[in-house]
Amino acid sequence: MTQFSWPVRVYWEDTDGGGIVYYGNYLRFLERARTEWLRARGVSQGALRADAGIQFSVVSVNVSYRRPAQLDDALTVTCEPQADGRASVRFAQRIFRGEELLLDADVRVACLDAKTLRPKRLPEFVLEAAE
Amino acid sequence: MTQFSWPVRVYWEDTDGGGIVYYGNYLRFLERARTEWLRARGVSQGALRADAGIQFSVVSVNVSYRRPAQLDDALTVTCEPQADGRASVRFAQRIFRGEELLLDADVRVACLDAKTLRPKRLPEFVLEAAE
Amino acid sequence: MTQFSWPVRVYWEDTDGGGIVYYGNYLRFLERARTEWLRARGVSQGALRADAGIQFSVVSVNVSYRRPAQLDDALTVTCEPQADGRASVRFAQRIFRGEELLLDADVRVACLDAKTLRPKRLPEFVLEAAE
Amino acid sequence: MTQFSWPVRVYWEDTDGGGIVYYGNYLRFLERARTEWLRARGVSQGALRADAGIQFSVVSVNVSYRRPAQLDDALTVTCEPQADGRASVRFAQRIFRGEELLLDADVRVACLDAKTLRPKRLPEFVLEAAE
Repeated sequence: MTQFSWPVRVYWEDTDGGGIVYYGNYLRFLERARTEWLRARGVSQGALRADAGIQFSVVSVNVSYRRPAQLDDALTVTCEPQADGRASVRFAQRIFRGEELLLDADVRVACLDAKTLRPKRLPEFVLEAAE
Repeated sequence: MTQFSWPVRVYWEDTDGGGIVYYGNYLRFLERARTEWLRARGVSQGALRADAGIQFSVVSVNVSYRRPAQLDDALTVTCEPQADGRASVRFAQRIFRGEELLLDADVRVACLDAKTLRPKRLPEFVLEAAE
Repeated sequence: MTQFSWPVRVYWEDTDGGGIVYYGNYLRFLERARTEWLRARGVSQGALRADAGIQFSVVSVNVSYRRPAQLDDALTVTCEPQADGRASVRFAQRIFRGEELLLDADVRVACLDAKTLRPKRLPEFVLEAAE
Repeated sequence: MTQFSWPVRVYWEDTDGGGIVYYGNYLRFLERARTEWLRARGVSQGALRADAGIQFSVVSVNVSYRRPAQLDDALTVTCEPQADGRASVRFAQRIFRGEELLLDADVRVACLDAKTLRPKRLPEFVLEAAE
């Protein structure tokens, strides 16, 4: 199981009046990495919905903020899927600035039927990646 | 024609690393006032779409930034509709901190058929308010 | 210990293409309630920093998303401080739509010396509220 | 004078309940391109402030929304500086999806002394680029 990572640059829009990235905005960075993890497997969420009738929904988020990111920082966001039954998956995610760990997070995502919004079996490629 | 106004408080989420409200976030404040102007007329955008098959779309925005707003500021956002044909309306909008003008804006909004996305005649109450 | 609550309206800015509030944006709602909890005690964060040399920093966030909020929803955000030593405090927070629980969260906030960024004893009124 | 361009991917965070990019969020894309235009000249805004005592402030924004961007779109944001006196500069900016023009904007930015916040002569490299 290899670890996926995605680069994120910090812009003015991400910072707050404390001069650091606003605590809620790290969740954007985390989602970009999850979306790009999917895209790296050739899957867009729009296509998943249209073709497979699947949509993802975040069920829970646990975030530990260790050090703040600042304007102009070049960050790396990692994304490592972990097994969590057949209809949901956990992503262990971290944000680094160089070697320095800024944040780690555990994000649980459910797979839903796009019409009924009921739990649905994950696509096979996600189940395999999370094993 | 009376002027509508809506109060907005500045939170951390609205500010950027410069210690002032991020320039793009004022557009959120402007939209809250437009949405509340509609709601004050008993109209929600969800209902407009479901019942009248109408949706609004911003066509252009001209904003002059005069003075910056800061954390904890209590702002007032005004909203004054102005005639612009039958299928669009202009909102003259201002943001004040007390008596002090911080920003003025001209926002042009088109009325669209929610299905075809083609121009559609504005609801009567908007046309009357904009006269 | 009484529970503090703060009303939040959902606007277009808060929603995403799935038609519901974006998962990171609930953290904005949670912070508005914490800020207003302070303000209800006569304390602004600007004044805390200028007068007492104190600033707050979120250390961790655990959020359970139970049901999604939608455009135009009128939400209630609660905020209940809980003891967590002398230099940090936990806020148990919930978001409701009417009686319906949409989200609950546990937010741990550290009190820092604004100059040195080292842990600092919480203001007395916070310690008392969290007992 | 060559035109600078910067790629932007549309994520969930950028969209709203209408299924398209929220009108205020395009201003984020525009700023990323301006910031990267500076960075391509070897200049970070943090360094400008620390070394040259300069900060930039947006004075006005005129935006024409032509077509909406959607989730997963790969956009290109252009940035072309234009002369506007010695203490401010205009950026003509456009957002494309492939060959298709989605938005054009005129953004006027003032150069300020970071301490006094009074107008200050632009750095030479900006004046030259804007000629």
